[in-house]
Amino acid sequence: METLLQINKTYNSKKGVFISFEGGEGVGKSTQIDLLRKDLINSRFNVVSTREPGGTKEAEELRKFLVAGDKKAWDSFSESLIFNAIRREHVNKIILPAIKNGSVVLCDRFIDSTIVYQGLVGEVSENDLLELHKKYCYNLYPDITFFLNLSPQKGLKRTLKRQNIVENRFENLGLNYHQKILNGFDTLQKRNPNRIIKINADNTKEFISNEISSYVKKLLTIND
Amino acid sequence: METLLQINKTYNSKKGVFISFEGGEGVGKSTQIDLLRKDLINSRFNVVSTREPGGTKEAEELRKFLVAGDKKAWDSFSESLIFNAIRREHVNKIILPAIKNGSVVLCDRFIDSTIVYQGLVGEVSENDLLELHKKYCYNLYPDITFFLNLSPQKGLKRTLKRQNIVENRFENLGLNYHQKILNGFDTLQKRNPNRIIKINADNTKEFISNEISSYVKKLLTIND
Repeated sequence: METLLQINKTYNSKKGVFISFEGGEGVGKSTQIDLLRKDLINSRFNVVSTREPGGTKEAEELRKFLVAGDKKAWDSFSESLIFNAIRREHVNKIILPAIKNGSVVLCDRFIDSTIVYQGLVGEVSENDLLELHKKYCYNLYPDITFFLNLSPQKGLKRTLKRQNIVENRFENLGLNYHQKILNGFDTLQKRNPNRIIKINADNTKEFISNEISSYVKKLLTIND
Repeated sequence: METLLQINKTYNSKKGVFISFEGGEGVGKSTQIDLLRKDLINSRFNVVSTREPGGTKEAEELRKFLVAGDKKAWDSFSESLIFNAIRREHVNKIILPAIKNGSVVLCDRFIDSTIVYQGLVGEVSENDLLELHKKYCYNLYPDITFFLNLSPQKGLKRTLKRQNIVENRFENLGLNYHQKILNGFDTLQKRNPNRIIKINADNTKEFISNEISSYVKKLLTIND
């Protein structure tokens, strides 16, 4: 198979690609984003690595606020509005300019997380969420989405090993909740098998990284 | 005319009333809310005095964030989502419980501010704003709204006298902008003459307070 560097030599950088990473807590999204980012940068691609909720200075502030707050602070409906506001700014200021600029955008969570957390597992109807996405976030979807699939037991074990984020509302909701999240992503993957790629995240990070890389190479070649 | 205390003796407190105050910067909303609140408390009404964006601990945090931030941080669309999230929590946690509890709720800004700032003066269609209000904020409207009408010149002069809030995005946008805000409230008042009462705010605070009080007495008597 061609290396990323070989692909880059023929890559038409006029239009970038947009890649998102999804899955529950502790499945290794940020590790994989970091590995892919380094790979792409070594092969001289322009890479913009970002995350939701966040991406802009103000959204990062809001993120802290949403994630660290009391878990009863906002209901799913209010959360869905806030996430759409954050996403709109993120899309306008970071993602769309980067795509237009020919960059490879790597995003830790995007619309699928909202559908799963506030919709399939929360109380908001999927239809309302799709409508907000259409109206406020240009109905933008990633070119490819990696769903890192890992049992909640293993994901939580990894998460609890990390420092500082043990007290996190999303991470204190119990295994049953996290199982529902996993099932939610699974449902979305089955509905969108072309866009969403299910990756077995119960492997070494190098193994997972290689698998992701092979899909990205294909995407960059096709996109050329 | 009966005093508020006399009215209270016959007031059926099973259902509260909801009163909002609207208008541009420096028109004296908080002063008037404070005077009315004291009046009502002296007459032994239960009063809940609150404000938007704010009302709950989390929303007060968000408020600081929205009002003190760089004026380009969020566009009207994102703002409208954030304000609806804040309003939903505010309605659920503060306003509806207080109304059900028989209190008189005094609110500094509510839906009309969103229609004016993000709609009539901003870029969001009024229809989209009304739809968000219906879907996420139970289509709740105040029983009565006092629109304090004052020329932007006079309002800004008053505002600039206050300390600490000179650096405020909403207050740094120039007279032309504030004139549009005033016209926006005027438009809403003309469309809803029964709910929205236009008060000439270019008077002493005692004079204005008496005028407001006479409407509130009528409302409390009718509501009985």
